[in-house]
Amino acid sequence: MKIYDTPGFPNPLRVRIVLAEKGLLSRVEFINVDLVAAEHKQPAFLSINPAGTVPVLELEDGTFISECTAITEYLDNLEGNPTLTGRTAREKAVIHMMQKRAESWLIDAIGIYFHHATPGLGPVLRAYKRPQWEGRTEWGQMHREQAEAGLGYFESVLRGQPYIAGESFSMADATVLGGLLFAHYADIPVPVEYRALLAWKQRMYQRPSVATQCFGDTPSI
Amino acid sequence: MKIYDTPGFPNPLRVRIVLAEKGLLSRVEFINVDLVAAEHKQPAFLSINPAGTVPVLELEDGTFISECTAITEYLDNLEGNPTLTGRTAREKAVIHMMQKRAESWLIDAIGIYFHHATPGLGPVLRAYKRPQWEGRTEWGQMHREQAEAGLGYFESVLRGQPYIAGESFSMADATVLGGLLFAHYADIPVPVEYRALLAWKQRMYQRPSVATQCFGDTPSI
Repeated sequence: MKIYDTPGFPNPLRVRIVLAEKGLLSRVEFINVDLVAAEHKQPAFLSINPAGTVPVLELEDGTFISECTAITEYLDNLEGNPTLTGRTAREKAVIHMMQKRAESWLIDAIGIYFHHATPGLGPVLRAYKRPQWEGRTEWGQMHREQAEAGLGYFESVLRGQPYIAGESFSMADATVLGGLLFAHYADIPVPVEYRALLAWKQRMYQRPSVATQCFGDTPSI
Repeated sequence: MKIYDTPGFPNPLRVRIVLAEKGLLSRVEFINVDLVAAEHKQPAFLSINPAGTVPVLELEDGTFISECTAITEYLDNLEGNPTLTGRTAREKAVIHMMQKRAESWLIDAIGIYFHHATPGLGPVLRAYKRPQWEGRTEWGQMHREQAEAGLGYFESVLRGQPYIAGESFSMADATVLGGLLFAHYADIPVPVEYRALLAWKQRMYQRPSVATQCFGDTPSI
């Protein structure tokens, strides 16, 4: 398998944590994509993922899979032993619901803030982000507020249970970790009174899959 | 099981097609939510789904599941015989990838256009949609363009395969059908030269699960 991504970025981190959880890192060839140069917005990359996002998984048969949830479903079910996407109908439902909330309310919201209301990754990529649109800064700020509300939501969730989707680690935990990395980059602090969220983050850092990916060749959160 | 939704609306249609596919309609009690009156933005509804969206599934144990993908994972796996979300790792990956594209590039994009650049569902709901934000109309129009590009993308997909995610019907087909219903409401025409997409729509209408839900107590697309 090949993965097209950029180490140290939020969505790539999600899939790298999944690979570490599943013991699959050694079976993947990583191909670096230069996000600052907007390589993911050029025709060559768009031909493998028309959404223009990383990461992308290339299967042995040449199929390209984009979107972290889809990539995770593949990796988690590859050997018939799903541990991150749920086993029962109820587990699958709760994990997918929390995965979507972690995307919409945290990682995607921060992405909109970062790319539209801050300098983002610089001028080359910004040319692909509607730089002439006058509403962009306000739009970005609204999503910063959404992300701050999202942090509050996950604080409330973690006051009642040890992991984002319940009693065990799932892909939704990896997504919230990607969200916290992005919040760090975008200077969105986690309020110190969010003790459950901060304690969860420290517990996650003890987990080998997270520790190796967050403190290995990628920056710390 | 209970489902909180509003018949005739795009995201509710997706889950109703899934229920019909799985033969589960008779096991569900439907509870109507008044979207025009913004019932889904009031505290009572937000307590069961903080995203303020329909549909929501209530399980027998009182758990509330929101987000169509999560609800579909539950219903499709309820009796251990998944037919709409994939069986193999590769099937799951492709279906989830196409599901996300159908949401981002069609149904969600049309929703942003409809609620921000048109009168939408009227003044009561609009009060919850940032009516003071000056950039809203341009933001909506950009998403109309995204939706039009999305229609072109699914036309290209259906020129090469009979269903949205490959050789068989999946939840991604139900999502594109929801997208076409929304396009109809929002006056976004499907270009007549999109013959593969239009032929697929006609084939879908022959399918009992789709026919009963699209032509039953819900308006036609």
